[in-house]
Amino acid sequence: MFSFIRRLLIGQPLNNKDIAHEQLPKWKALSIFSSDALSSVAYGPEQAMVILVATPGLISYGYLGPIAGAIFCLLLIVALSYAQVAKANPAGGGAYAIAKKNLGEMPALVAAASVFADYILTAAVSVSAGTDAIISAFPQLSGIQVNLDLFVLFFVLMLVNLRGIREASNAFVFPTYAFLFGITALIVTGVFKAFTYHQAIIPAVSMETKPLDWVMLFIVLRAFANGCSSMTGIEAIADSVPLFKKPEGHNAVATTYWMAGILGFMVLGISFLMMHYHVIPLPNITALSQLAEHVFGRGLLYYYIQISTMIVLYLAANTAYNGLPILLSIVAKDGYMPRYLSARGERLTYSNNIILLTLAAACLIIIYNGDIVHLISLYAIGVFLSFTIAQVSMVIHWHRERQKGWIIRAIINGTGALVTGIVVLIITATKFFQGAWIIIIFIPVMTFVFKKIRHHYNDVAEQLSLSQRCLGKRARGQKARNLAIVPIASPTNVVAETLDYAESISDTVIALYIVTDEEAGRKIKEKWADWDPGIQLVTVNSPYRFVIQPIIDFIGELQMQRCDYDYITVIIPEFETKKWWHRLLHGQTGWILRTLLIFREDVIVATIPYHLKK
Amino acid sequence: MFSFIRRLLIGQPLNNKDIAHEQLPKWKALSIFSSDALSSVAYGPEQAMVILVATPGLISYGYLGPIAGAIFCLLLIVALSYAQVAKANPAGGGAYAIAKKNLGEMPALVAAASVFADYILTAAVSVSAGTDAIISAFPQLSGIQVNLDLFVLFFVLMLVNLRGIREASNAFVFPTYAFLFGITALIVTGVFKAFTYHQAIIPAVSMETKPLDWVMLFIVLRAFANGCSSMTGIEAIADSVPLFKKPEGHNAVATTYWMAGILGFMVLGISFLMMHYHVIPLPNITALSQLAEHVFGRGLLYYYIQISTMIVLYLAANTAYNGLPILLSIVAKDGYMPRYLSARGERLTYSNNIILLTLAAACLIIIYNGDIVHLISLYAIGVFLSFTIAQVSMVIHWHRERQKGWIIRAIINGTGALVTGIVVLIITATKFFQGAWIIIIFIPVMTFVFKKIRHHYNDVAEQLSLSQRCLGKRARGQKARNLAIVPIASPTNVVAETLDYAESISDTVIALYIVTDEEAGRKIKEKWADWDPGIQLVTVNSPYRFVIQPIIDFIGELQMQRCDYDYITVIIPEFETKKWWHRLLHGQTGWILRTLLIFREDVIVATIPYHLKK
Repeated sequence: MFSFIRRLLIGQPLNNKDIAHEQLPKWKALSIFSSDALSSVAYGPEQAMVILVATPGLISYGYLGPIAGAIFCLLLIVALSYAQVAKANPAGGGAYAIAKKNLGEMPALVAAASVFADYILTAAVSVSAGTDAIISAFPQLSGIQVNLDLFVLFFVLMLVNLRGIREASNAFVFPTYAFLFGITALIVTGVFKAFTYHQAIIPAVSMETKPLDWVMLFIVLRAFANGCSSMTGIEAIADSVPLFKKPEGHNAVATTYWMAGILGFMVLGISFLMMHYHVIPLPNITALSQLAEHVFGRGLLYYYIQISTMIVLYLAANTAYNGLPILLSIVAKDGYMPRYLSARGERLTYSNNIILLTLAAACLIIIYNGDIVHLISLYAIGVFLSFTIAQVSMVIHWHRERQKGWIIRAIINGTGALVTGIVVLIITATKFFQGAWIIIIFIPVMTFVFKKIRHHYNDVAEQLSLSQRCLGKRARGQKARNLAIVPIASPTNVVAETLDYAESISDTVIALYIVTDEEAGRKIKEKWADWDPGIQLVTVNSPYRFVIQPIIDFIGELQMQRCDYDYITVIIPEFETKKWWHRLLHGQTGWILRTLLIFREDVIVATIPYHLKK
Repeated sequence: MFSFIRRLLIGQPLNNKDIAHEQLPKWKALSIFSSDALSSVAYGPEQAMVILVATPGLISYGYLGPIAGAIFCLLLIVALSYAQVAKANPAGGGAYAIAKKNLGEMPALVAAASVFADYILTAAVSVSAGTDAIISAFPQLSGIQVNLDLFVLFFVLMLVNLRGIREASNAFVFPTYAFLFGITALIVTGVFKAFTYHQAIIPAVSMETKPLDWVMLFIVLRAFANGCSSMTGIEAIADSVPLFKKPEGHNAVATTYWMAGILGFMVLGISFLMMHYHVIPLPNITALSQLAEHVFGRGLLYYYIQISTMIVLYLAANTAYNGLPILLSIVAKDGYMPRYLSARGERLTYSNNIILLTLAAACLIIIYNGDIVHLISLYAIGVFLSFTIAQVSMVIHWHRERQKGWIIRAIINGTGALVTGIVVLIITATKFFQGAWIIIIFIPVMTFVFKKIRHHYNDVAEQLSLSQRCLGKRARGQKARNLAIVPIASPTNVVAETLDYAESISDTVIALYIVTDEEAGRKIKEKWADWDPGIQLVTVNSPYRFVIQPIIDFIGELQMQRCDYDYITVIIPEFETKKWWHRLLHGQTGWILRTLLIFREDVIVATIPYHLKK
């Protein structure tokens, strides 16, 4: 039954041979890898604006223009840097891989922890923003916002990704271009209307600023920090170079530029429209929704924009599902996370990792009640920290290779590192108390956990290595000697069978009976003598009626004394009952004994299943 | 730590030799065995009165006198019958034992089920009534009634009884006599005041009755049924004859008469006082508390009566703890309940049974919110049903023995059986919809469960018996042949050790490797060839990356083919990690494999513990 539902939901198991090696053309790659970056314009400029209008009495709306400009410049620098990353790493690999190659273990782990944090936040923020988009269009849904978020997480994203990546990737193409078309239409129409409008292009109220004193500077930087969330996802192409058609590097670089160009156009366009229409935050209505309504009215185009925004945002959440499970599997393969996380599930996906990501994102959504404003406070630190580490790695890379023109390349990446590093500091400083501290704690803690796990695996590997001692022991060719102990409760069929087996594995067999009641003990001894199975019955008195402890003590004493036995095997019959409730009628002594004996060294526990027929 | 708290609460384990064989004098036995019966006057007459005044408009208070008289007569008959039970069964034993001897299995099981139900109700009713007594004196406690009940159940009754019976039994003597003294003083003073009072001894309003039509008859019979709860516990002496000083039978009979006499005096006295003062039910104040206040005022004697009533009621609950665990152990020893319930715990008490009783009584108290009126609806059916079965058994007993004067004895017990049988019918008929149906369902269901359990044990015994076949097989003297399979993940120290062991128990050893990844499979084969441990490595391809199923399938195929092996032993290394969290870093494949293999017949699973040192 469970198996049937599982098959229905995630499909039949897939053969190793079915792993796809896709070769994407640029137009397809652009839609697949840019859904995260492009969709973030749906919340990025708005989150900058929210900060600027949040403090009453401090007029600062006019700073939105410069902030959009700063983000645009930052975007160009980062795109240029990442184009270099794509060119230099034809094998792909994110900040973790690049840092590991060029900077060493610690920076790589910090990068991995940062990217983990931000993938989880990408899923949480994008799903919440997608739901916000649809709630703006249909306010009657606002009561079930968190439920909608969780439904999309568990029943759309998790299930689709458990089924496997290929079904998902084709689904990307149409919605991303649909979104692109919608936003472009919005910006072009909006700008056209603005310029043909009879009043000022940007109303005076949108241009008002207070002088940039310290308080103002803090607010502007925080708005900038929030706005930087528009740039999350820009690294996706450089991480996935091998999926491009040949020549991979060249195509990836071109696609990066295209994406950055489109993203820059959107950021500037939307920021301009926000200033032109002087958009301010309204409950349950996103800034994009307000713009679409201003430009198109509540007509077909308005709904087209809201719905395509929702879909592309949900797809952006899927970027986390494409990225985190694979990164987690790489980190696990390197021994920094539990190794079994590196194994593909039955549908060739990293099912455990997909479930982990879903649970983590669901926790964040539940804790923050699906509220973008709060989630954004945690966001983007990880992204920019991993940008910085990746760019520093590239500087080292160029320095090592010293190919022709390496100095210019190093300067480009160095500038990228410097700028993104400054952004990390700005985000940390301005959003620390709003939630950024959580990430500031999470990253070193996670790094520490990585190190501890790797340390344990190293220890284990050392202990398990086929050392000389072992080879020597086996080379002797001498057969190890084995002592078998069979604890019995009374002479039965099962005991006879167990003794049979004990004699087959060992020359010395001891039947052990714990006497908890003298009367019963006498009877058992008599029965044993009558039966005479040719095996010694050892009895141990237990006046306090404990059964398990005396067996363990007896074995302990044997271990102290034995000279000529290499192993002690305790053989325990285990009853398999016909009906589940019959199990309740049998004591659990065997099971408890087994569990406790496992804690002793050099004692092997053999379980003989005995199936009751009725 | 856990062990320390356990020792602190229930004490050191006790040796088998410490089982006490007490010989109680009559004055001590009376206090120990009659706390249940005597204390029930604290709620019995009141519960009869509650019914009589419950129906508005139907004046029926005057029937309280006849009802008290009827209960008194019933008490005399039952006491006479039970005196005979005590005389004829010097070994003691309750209705279950007597019925088993004289009537056979089914009546005995019905008796056991009845007594189970009523012991649990005794605990629940007595604890609730004890708390009611103290709340009557201190009404400010009324908010925490159920909490008080549960505290007494778990932290007084359960703990004291887990520690052991001897500590408990001496604690009985003083409170029972204190209660006896208090109630006697109350009755004597009250009656004296009534007779020296200048008005009528019983006010006219207490004598009013409507004619006994069908409706009235039903109410009066229901009041009588409720009042019969005063008689619960009267069988305690006959059940425990061996604990008396010699001559046991004679002393037990004398004590039974004494108890019945005192109980009868109390029932009549309290009923008379209730009519004299025309007591009616008040919330949170018991009838006994009202009487004590009328007779003594709210002085020292009032509080003395309330507190001694509370203590003796809690002790009455303890009667269930003295009775049910032993009865349960006898029934379990006979195979009608899980056998391990017949084993004494470390303090020589039947600890599991004590905990079971506590949980069951706690459930009842929580479900009925500690409300006596509701609990009483379930009560007394079991008691009177077991009375009836015991008396019928005695009739059969006398008929079988045919000693001198057996006809008179048979008539006495026959009358007892008839009268108590009628009471069972009255209780069932008048309280069926109020809760009695629960008991009417519980008793046959429990009887069915007893039979099913016994049936299973019979089946098991038959399957386990040392049949001729087995003796024959062992007699051959031929050693069984064993095939060892070692599933491996990669050649390590642990594998080397495991193979060592495998070779010590079997001539044929197969190392089994499941190839989930062709690349990795090739490497393992090369490593194996390099190492060359002299053991065949069998590889099985698993393109769907399942690990456990191919191992099980491989074993299944071997079982189909094998001709010359008696057993297949699968040897699984199990890692014992140094720190708990390390365990999370290792897959659970070994554990799952073991669990699944146990379900196959003729496959033995041997676990080799491997202790990681760091």
